[in-house]
Amino acid sequence: MQPIKVYADRRSQPSRAVIIFCRVNRIDFEEVTVDLFKSQHFSPEFKKINPMGQVPAIVDGRFKLFESHAILRYLSSVFPGVADHWYPADLFTRAKIEAILDWHHSNLRRGAATFVLNTVLAPYLGLPSSHEAAKQAEKLLLKSLTRIESIWLKGDAKFLMGNPQPSIADLSLVCEIMQLEILGDSARDRILGPYEKISSWIQNVKKATSPHFEEVHELLFKVKAHNSAVAAAKLGSELSKDLKTASKL
Amino acid sequence: MQPIKVYADRRSQPSRAVIIFCRVNRIDFEEVTVDLFKSQHFSPEFKKINPMGQVPAIVDGRFKLFESHAILRYLSSVFPGVADHWYPADLFTRAKIEAILDWHHSNLRRGAATFVLNTVLAPYLGLPSSHEAAKQAEKLLLKSLTRIESIWLKGDAKFLMGNPQPSIADLSLVCEIMQLEILGDSARDRILGPYEKISSWIQNVKKATSPHFEEVHELLFKVKAHNSAVAAAKLGSELSKDLKTASKL
Repeated sequence: MQPIKVYADRRSQPSRAVIIFCRVNRIDFEEVTVDLFKSQHFSPEFKKINPMGQVPAIVDGRFKLFESHAILRYLSSVFPGVADHWYPADLFTRAKIEAILDWHHSNLRRGAATFVLNTVLAPYLGLPSSHEAAKQAEKLLLKSLTRIESIWLKGDAKFLMGNPQPSIADLSLVCEIMQLEILGDSARDRILGPYEKISSWIQNVKKATSPHFEEVHELLFKVKAHNSAVAAAKLGSELSKDLKTASKL
Repeated sequence: MQPIKVYADRRSQPSRAVIIFCRVNRIDFEEVTVDLFKSQHFSPEFKKINPMGQVPAIVDGRFKLFESHAILRYLSSVFPGVADHWYPADLFTRAKIEAILDWHHSNLRRGAATFVLNTVLAPYLGLPSSHEAAKQAEKLLLKSLTRIESIWLKGDAKFLMGNPQPSIADLSLVCEIMQLEILGDSARDRILGPYEKISSWIQNVKKATSPHFEEVHELLFKVKAHNSAVAAAKLGSELSKDLKTASKL
C-alpha cells in the first residue's frame, strides 16, 4: 500500500493535529511541507491538492481531502488500526464529539487563531493586524476556555466529556491552545493561568500521545524562541537608545 | 417511541436546516420555539438543554445534543428512514461532505452571519454593530460564494460535488444563504446577482425539499417584510421632513 501524503506546516495547529494522529496510530504517511511563511499554500501546485489553499490536506491514492476535522474522521474510519476511542463507533458518544468539533470552529479556533494572528503572526504572513480584532478575539478565547472547563471538563475529567481516553476532539482543541505558546511565556500565562483544568487536560493529551506530541511541537517552540529573541533585541535597542538620549541630556 | 424535541427559532438558519430535515425525512418531532429576539436562549431552563445558549438543540429521550451539523449527522445515523444521500455511508463521499460542513463554519457562515448581524439584525438582538465588521464580512461572504461555485458546483452540478441528490451540506449551506433575504431585495440581488450557479442550486435544494423548505422559511420572509416596511416608513418620514424643511425655505 502506498503511504498517504500529508501536506502540512507544523506551525499550523490543525497540521500538527493530523501529523500527531498519524504517528500515534502508526499510519504510514509521507509529510510534505507547505511553508506558509513562504506562501507555498498559494502556489498553483498546491492549489491542485487543495483549491482552498490551506493546510493540512491529504492525498490517499487518487483521493484528496482537506479540512483537518474531516481528515481526522476519515483516517479514523479507513485505517482499521485506529483505536475506537479516537472516533467512537457508538453513535451517542460520536455525536457528542461531533458537537465539540463543530463548536470549535466559531469559538475556540476563531478566538485563539484570530488573537495569535493579530498579535504576533500577521507580519510573518504579510497580513495586516488590528488591535481591535485582537481585543475581540481575546474575549472569545477566554469565554471558550471557560466553557470547555465548565461543560466538557467537569469534575475530575481526564479528557473531554470525562472520557477515559482522548478523541480527535481532544487532539484538535489541545493543538489549538498550544498555539498560544508563540505569544511568549508571559502572555500565555496571563491567558491560561486561571484555567487549571485546561492545563491538566493539555498534560493528559500530551502524555497520551508522547513522544509524538512533543516532537511535532518542536518547530512551534523554535518560532517562540525566535520571537522572544527578536522582542528582546528590540527592547535592548530601545534601552540603548534611551541610554544614549539620557547621556546627551 | 417518544418524538424528539427540536429547540429552534425559525429565524435562525441552522434551526431551519434541522426542521426541514426532520420534516422531509418524516422524523417524528416536537418543535419548541426558543425566541432569540426575547433572549429565551439565555434562560436558565434552556441552558439545561444547551449550556452554550444556542439554537438549534435536540433532546432524544435522555440524550441532548447541540450544533446543527452534529444534529444532522446524528439524525441521519439513528433514523433508518433517512435516505443515504443525505449523509452517505460510503466513506469517500462522506468525507467530502464533512470537508464542506467543516469549511462552512469559518467561511460562508462567518461571512454571511456576521454581515447580516452587522447590517440589519444587531438592533433586534440588542447587540452593537460595526460598519468595519460588515465590510470585512461581505468580503469573506463573496469569496465563499465564489469558491462554492468554482469548486463544488463545477459544470452542470445540480447539488454540491455534482451529486444527483442533496446532502446535509447542501441543506445547511443553502439555509445560510437564504438568511440574506432579510437584507431586502436590492441588497440580496447586489450580493447574489453575479452567482447564477448558486441561484440554480438554491432552487434545486428548494424543489428537493418542497413544500417544507418554503413553509419553514415563511417566518424569515415575514421578518423581511417587516424590515422593508420599517425602512420604507423611515424613508417616508425623512422625505416628509425634507418637504417640510423645503416649504419653510
